[in-house]
Amino acid sequence: MFNTVTIVGVGLIGGSFGLALKDLRLASKVIGVSRSGSTAQKALQLGIVDEVMGLEEAVRQSDLIYVAIPVDVTLPVMHTILDMIRPDQIVVDAGSTKQALCTSVADHPNRARFVATHPMWGTEYSGPEAAVHDAFRGRTCVICEAEKSDPQALATIKKMYTDLGMSLVYMEAEGHDVHAAYVSHISHITSFALANTVLEKEREEDAIFELAGGGFESTVRLAKSSPAMWGPIFMQNRENVLDVLNEHIAQLRKFKSSLEKENYAFLMELMDNANKIRRILK
Amino acid sequence: MFNTVTIVGVGLIGGSFGLALKDLRLASKVIGVSRSGSTAQKALQLGIVDEVMGLEEAVRQSDLIYVAIPVDVTLPVMHTILDMIRPDQIVVDAGSTKQALCTSVADHPNRARFVATHPMWGTEYSGPEAAVHDAFRGRTCVICEAEKSDPQALATIKKMYTDLGMSLVYMEAEGHDVHAAYVSHISHITSFALANTVLEKEREEDAIFELAGGGFESTVRLAKSSPAMWGPIFMQNRENVLDVLNEHIAQLRKFKSSLEKENYAFLMELMDNANKIRRILK
Repeated sequence: MFNTVTIVGVGLIGGSFGLALKDLRLASKVIGVSRSGSTAQKALQLGIVDEVMGLEEAVRQSDLIYVAIPVDVTLPVMHTILDMIRPDQIVVDAGSTKQALCTSVADHPNRARFVATHPMWGTEYSGPEAAVHDAFRGRTCVICEAEKSDPQALATIKKMYTDLGMSLVYMEAEGHDVHAAYVSHISHITSFALANTVLEKEREEDAIFELAGGGFESTVRLAKSSPAMWGPIFMQNRENVLDVLNEHIAQLRKFKSSLEKENYAFLMELMDNANKIRRILK
Repeated sequence: MFNTVTIVGVGLIGGSFGLALKDLRLASKVIGVSRSGSTAQKALQLGIVDEVMGLEEAVRQSDLIYVAIPVDVTLPVMHTILDMIRPDQIVVDAGSTKQALCTSVADHPNRARFVATHPMWGTEYSGPEAAVHDAFRGRTCVICEAEKSDPQALATIKKMYTDLGMSLVYMEAEGHDVHAAYVSHISHITSFALANTVLEKEREEDAIFELAGGGFESTVRLAKSSPAMWGPIFMQNRENVLDVLNEHIAQLRKFKSSLEKENYAFLMELMDNANKIRRILK
């Protein structure tokens, strides 16, 4: 499908993308670009990429450049890449926020060579070691501002994600960021805060270790996520995240009030309502 | 190990206990007791129990009576059972709160025949259909006020849980309830509240359905849990749960403040601290 693909950022997402390209033979050569020499070497050792080199040299050789780095760094890097690409090259990003990036490149002369995407997959781990085979299959990929990409570039990227086993959803960047705040960003904040709650109050860590059952682990596991990745996401999407966070605190206060007042009927009502999530989750 | 075991409440926990008894051949006969005729029939159909009958008749025939019903109903049912048992019988409960029950039976003449336990396992599902084979293996079981149980009864129950593959931890009832608030009860409240947050704000449910990735699902799955089971737990443990809930809201407010003030250093500090949970979770 591609001759040469450059992956900028060979961590959890970029690394898994590299593995998928190789597993499905979608690229003849995969080049890795990383600010960290040890990360690049690790990606090479793990067979995620065939070669590592500097950004400019890598971009020059590639028909696809896939950017999977923290969303704050994505902004300048994307401009650097768009400034230098030819009309036969395609640039894609995989970031969890879309509005800041789409706004930032809106007037770039090469905007049409860029396809803004968010493959909705991740784990709480990071770095090349966190990359997994067949990561994206069965998941949803959001494509934003599809109409601003060149139709052929868009078609190529749609086919690529479909080949990876993803289903495609189209959204405006603004709408994407609102939805992402609800279904992804707030989960991470509550999980970080829950970890801090337990760490703050519970000094006898052995007791946590021994008693923490499956429920605790599943709600708190996202607290292991990378601050370097999530900090910039929360900052770029801060208005939406703050809206959802305020609502979440208000919902927690309802539970608090029901307990303080020993209002069992209200407590049951809150839980019965929450059970409606069964309709949405499988 | 046992001739006849009665399981009072053949849902998620009681049902899984019945399956474990049968899989490991720890009982010649398992009797199910349920307030609901259809639940009892379901347990019979699923092979969780061999017979169903009324509480009094079942208790009379059994050397072990295992109580796995909502913690509010446990209080009167436990008294009914303790009032009628003989010195050769053992009664065990599996509730998620321990202090109310232990206090309630403290002066019962048959207190020594009772072993207060909390096998730390569960899922968000309920009823006999939710019962699973080999549920307890590798998990921790808390035994409370062990010194108030008859040594032989205690030894029998310790052996039983060890046979199920559980490791044992001993705590006072008060300490148990504090720990349970941190590592189990708060996770359920945050999950219920997160579901309500999303359901409240997000009207386009298709978007949730399509975009909700693994992170969302894992933090919100406990919101599918049974209100009939969890309401009484929260009420019985309300003081501890309120303490943890207040701390959790305070932790969320720190995230809120860091975003409102665009204080990136503080945001990173909060997440770095949360990452310490890695030491505790595998």
